[in-house]
Amino acid sequence: MSASSSTNNTRMLELRGGLGAIPGVRLAGVHAGIKARKRDLALVAFDSPQVCASVITTNEIKAAPLLVTGRHLSESGDAMRAIVINSGCANACTGERGERDAQATARQAAALLEIDPNQVVIASTGVIGVLMPMDRVQRGLERCEGQLEAGGKSAHDAAEAIMTTDRVPKLSAYSFYDGTTKYVVGGIAKGSGMIAPNMATMLAFVATDAPMTRAALQAALSECCDESFNMISVDGDMSTNDACYAFAPVGKGSAPEGFAAALRRVCLDLAQAMVKDGEGATKTLTMHVTGAATVVQARAAARAVINSNLVKTAVYGEDPNWGRVIAAAGSVKAGLDPEKWSLYVNDKLWVDVGAIEVLSEAEGHAEMEHSSIVLRLDLGIGDASATGWGCDLSKDYVRINASYRT
Amino acid sequence: MSASSSTNNTRMLELRGGLGAIPGVRLAGVHAGIKARKRDLALVAFDSPQVCASVITTNEIKAAPLLVTGRHLSESGDAMRAIVINSGCANACTGERGERDAQATARQAAALLEIDPNQVVIASTGVIGVLMPMDRVQRGLERCEGQLEAGGKSAHDAAEAIMTTDRVPKLSAYSFYDGTTKYVVGGIAKGSGMIAPNMATMLAFVATDAPMTRAALQAALSECCDESFNMISVDGDMSTNDACYAFAPVGKGSAPEGFAAALRRVCLDLAQAMVKDGEGATKTLTMHVTGAATVVQARAAARAVINSNLVKTAVYGEDPNWGRVIAAAGSVKAGLDPEKWSLYVNDKLWVDVGAIEVLSEAEGHAEMEHSSIVLRLDLGIGDASATGWGCDLSKDYVRINASYRT
Repeated sequence: MSASSSTNNTRMLELRGGLGAIPGVRLAGVHAGIKARKRDLALVAFDSPQVCASVITTNEIKAAPLLVTGRHLSESGDAMRAIVINSGCANACTGERGERDAQATARQAAALLEIDPNQVVIASTGVIGVLMPMDRVQRGLERCEGQLEAGGKSAHDAAEAIMTTDRVPKLSAYSFYDGTTKYVVGGIAKGSGMIAPNMATMLAFVATDAPMTRAALQAALSECCDESFNMISVDGDMSTNDACYAFAPVGKGSAPEGFAAALRRVCLDLAQAMVKDGEGATKTLTMHVTGAATVVQARAAARAVINSNLVKTAVYGEDPNWGRVIAAAGSVKAGLDPEKWSLYVNDKLWVDVGAIEVLSEAEGHAEMEHSSIVLRLDLGIGDASATGWGCDLSKDYVRINASYRT
Repeated sequence: MSASSSTNNTRMLELRGGLGAIPGVRLAGVHAGIKARKRDLALVAFDSPQVCASVITTNEIKAAPLLVTGRHLSESGDAMRAIVINSGCANACTGERGERDAQATARQAAALLEIDPNQVVIASTGVIGVLMPMDRVQRGLERCEGQLEAGGKSAHDAAEAIMTTDRVPKLSAYSFYDGTTKYVVGGIAKGSGMIAPNMATMLAFVATDAPMTRAALQAALSECCDESFNMISVDGDMSTNDACYAFAPVGKGSAPEGFAAALRRVCLDLAQAMVKDGEGATKTLTMHVTGAATVVQARAAARAVINSNLVKTAVYGEDPNWGRVIAAAGSVKAGLDPEKWSLYVNDKLWVDVGAIEVLSEAEGHAEMEHSSIVLRLDLGIGDASATGWGCDLSKDYVRINASYRT
């Protein structure tokens, strides 16, 4: 957690309730019938207009709600009031009809909340290429509006409603103190498959009660995403629907001291919860890369390792096959010098520079038996570092994804 | 096979015996004891000096035999006489000792064949970070030398000796006729896991009896690799040991007419054999991308699809989840225009431009039941095309790779 520790006097404290911990935020999550049985529609309402920042998928195919939300943010990005999120249908590759459906959803939510449709963020997750069942969405929104409530219970319902193959809802919140005022940052997220560096199938919504400008919020969010959501991988796939949206009350200045650290902590919590909940995952893998020439190279090496099917199957099989780690890191022009690297497992030196093995096969195997494997690859070249988070690749991953829609 | 068909009068005919079909090539494959029971050491001897071309891994960590062979090719690339290949030990991440071992292996083979050590190509495949059992290699080489023989039987033994998790040896050979003379091109290869675009864990050795310059051979090999070995994927991992070496009798001019087509056919055969033998594979996937603006973009899209774990698990589960194909192709800046693409499965239109589904779920599922799935994504933008070959991701892939070394 080196990246997220707070070393000054901003006193960060963990809270329950995710988005529900933030004053002025009301939520609901219901079963609208988009999916067979589970909650599938969430509504988040802000009591006052919010500045909104976003980081979205770089996929050339972007789902309709992403396109529609992009236009809304151009119009009203300084005065957003609500979020509608559904699971069960990605509304991606659905053409003009899909965009009309996303617009209609925003209009319906806006009518219920008596706000402008441009003030609504829309997000979807689920199967690609299926049209939204708009009658069910409309009725579900009405039920959501009737159930809107502040607090952890409704945030939990909302976090549950945005799940796809997730096993657990994902919430995180922290309070921080900037010297004069106590603020809160909180969020909810979904994601457990199709997770890759660069915003794969994941949705995250974070908010705070600390006022700031939209530019200040965007700067903080972009930096946090690079260190959290963009450094996790479950299967290396990048989705058409990924997005992280952040909200803050409209303010005139920069973010208060302590905000960036609290936001980073919330994003890291949510990102790590996704990896821990990775489809079929039985173990998590934390990959620190240190001693790199640049952060870009350190990140590239960390991502290559957490994305490698061979590393992931070795972790699953508890096989101390360190060669696969080095081969993966070497494949991405990370500046790996064959004569300078060393590899650590769970803080023990595993392989020393120059390929002299320090831990025996049995010792290496014993380290791999942990349910949380922490590797550190020191490139021995410079001072830059990065961390990536991943999970193993199990037979269950294959089972889950071979029959996702059935 | 559009890329490999011969449309002129060079009359390409398939032969048995792979490398063994080429006059002047003798081979042997023995059990040297590097692995527990199976053949693990191959020797190939050329009766006359050969020009040698190569395409090797772009991994920053290169195995010792690659480095040593690189120096030999600088010295004697116009007059190579032998190849030594072992499985069971990659001789990668083995430092100076590994290089000395590779040099010693070349010296021992050279002494047995009464040639210069610089005339020997060395290649290894197997576990990373383990030292070569040099006494066994020496004794194995002696046995190989005693068994050197022309023809298909010895080529089969050699192809078997270079296997790791491969289930079948991989050989291919064709004769072609340039109008006056009949020539032969043939090869052997190994690879079934850690296969990715850009020369992942694979070794291929091809040769011909058609004389040409080293430059002519290199040009033909580089082009063929881009269309064959660099367009297959089993698991997206890139190895430290991958190499393809090509040999031809020393000549003064360019390659005879028909050579490029025959070489391409041999490389495609070997590449497709790797995919078909992919670890745990139950189905193969051929991904044609047409209508792209550039070949680079077409290749990027084809590779993204065959590399996608979500596409591969859908193929395994016979799930007609075309959204995953589009999401994968969209993730790599292939110039995918959301309003122009269309997708075909086994020559049937699956999804039309603008996301109107043509095949029903049941019809799509029926197509996915084939053991060889052929997809074509038409980008509808330009005239460039490319093809990639992959396989499904099964529970068996996980089983094999979770316990590779045990």
